[in-house]
Amino acid sequence: MATSTRSSKRQKTGADTAAETDDSMAYKLIYWPGIPGRGEHIRLAFEATGTPYVDVSNKTDAGVNAVMAQISEKNIGDDNNPPPLAPPILQHGDTLLSQTPNILAYLGPKLGLVPDVAEDSAGMYHVNALALTALDGLSNEPHDVHHPIASGAYYEEQKEEALKKAADYRAVRLPKFLGYFERVLSGPASGGGEWLYGGKMTYADLVLFQTLDGVTYAFPKCVDKLRSRGKYEKVFAHYERVKALDKIQSYLASDRRLKYSMGIYRHYPELDDE
Amino acid sequence: MATSTRSSKRQKTGADTAAETDDSMAYKLIYWPGIPGRGEHIRLAFEATGTPYVDVSNKTDAGVNAVMAQISEKNIGDDNNPPPLAPPILQHGDTLLSQTPNILAYLGPKLGLVPDVAEDSAGMYHVNALALTALDGLSNEPHDVHHPIASGAYYEEQKEEALKKAADYRAVRLPKFLGYFERVLSGPASGGGEWLYGGKMTYADLVLFQTLDGVTYAFPKCVDKLRSRGKYEKVFAHYERVKALDKIQSYLASDRRLKYSMGIYRHYPELDDE
Repeated sequence: MATSTRSSKRQKTGADTAAETDDSMAYKLIYWPGIPGRGEHIRLAFEATGTPYVDVSNKTDAGVNAVMAQISEKNIGDDNNPPPLAPPILQHGDTLLSQTPNILAYLGPKLGLVPDVAEDSAGMYHVNALALTALDGLSNEPHDVHHPIASGAYYEEQKEEALKKAADYRAVRLPKFLGYFERVLSGPASGGGEWLYGGKMTYADLVLFQTLDGVTYAFPKCVDKLRSRGKYEKVFAHYERVKALDKIQSYLASDRRLKYSMGIYRHYPELDDE
Repeated sequence: MATSTRSSKRQKTGADTAAETDDSMAYKLIYWPGIPGRGEHIRLAFEATGTPYVDVSNKTDAGVNAVMAQISEKNIGDDNNPPPLAPPILQHGDTLLSQTPNILAYLGPKLGLVPDVAEDSAGMYHVNALALTALDGLSNEPHDVHHPIASGAYYEEQKEEALKKAADYRAVRLPKFLGYFERVLSGPASGGGEWLYGGKMTYADLVLFQTLDGVTYAFPKCVDKLRSRGKYEKVFAHYERVKALDKIQSYLASDRRLKYSMGIYRHYPELDDE
């Protein structure tokens, strides 16, 4: 049974920066190399806060084997950690965590990407809900658009069904989620409409930015049309606001930002508007 | 911006039981009436711990209107709370939270359904990851089996595609997730294999129980076949272990336990094994 209390004792202080560059407590992201994918949400949390991290599969010799060892059907985990089903996986000291929104929930308080619990005890849960909702509608669903029948089969084998699902996604689902986040940004809990919650940037803002960026890559004509309707002005202004942050700008211009290709977000022109 | 610190100050004490029966701080579940659905995970957390709660749509005059008011496209939330996209919604004092795994993360420490953070600072995140994974593979995917193209259209309009997705689910996805939880229960972090994590029941155990129960309702022949393979003995023993808990037994026999019908888990014989 896990008994480490290390992470609960850690507070973000000046000394922390040094501790994090010490290899044993460095944040290590284990994710498929070469694509942004779900790992991108974790990268953005680090990049937006200037937090050092090791992108294991892209930047060390371990490469894809770092992922394969974790998700092997022979892996039953260790004394502290259940095995993960899939990447992204965060390694932090003796702790290994999987599931994108879970890793973000863990990092949120450590990186200052959720409201301070002493000031707003429910804040981190509101942020978690907003991130989960963006991941549902703007990451999981876009994935299922090109893989509606079997995630383990080729797109070409389910293209006919993908065409149908894409039509529903563009006409119904995507507008629904954009409309939802427009309402969130219009509501008083956003604290003014610049950020999703509490008047400050949280990881939910980064997730909304990244998912909308991916959706725009996958369905550029559809997003263009929706943008021109003028019904989602706050959402698109929010997207530009995140993109214009100094640290995000630098990151997007760096070689650490990987190109979309055959991951969650895929650009098949036949699945987009005409 | 939300500034309430009420919930962080609350500790589970004897006095708490009284506080929770006081209407203002009672736990209120807002979910579609008449079906177990995703709301069932919240009910089970309360039922397994003997925690009083109000099942608003089923047990008060508000009925379905309690849900409709929350998810109205005119709702922009209030000073403390962003609007929810969908139920289940938990109301606790001034706090309104949506997203099933988020509500469970909020309730976990309050109901004693996650490890004590002082003893195991990462424990609650491991529990969250396990719950998210069960919800992904044993709740969201089974839903998508009968609605592979458009969640807003009828099953009959997408039956052809559902037949294909069901075949993949039964042959590939369901065995993958059962195999994963068998490994979790085989691993040292489970603390002996009776529970998923840390040798004690957590809300992840309740989620795995409920999702496997729903999958068994939807695909009885397939689950029978998989069970008879003997490869998932720990998973099925875990299911029986949760089901045999005194409070769960009483709950399942009560009229508070709703019958499956046309929700997430649907029994269409043509989607099951022959």
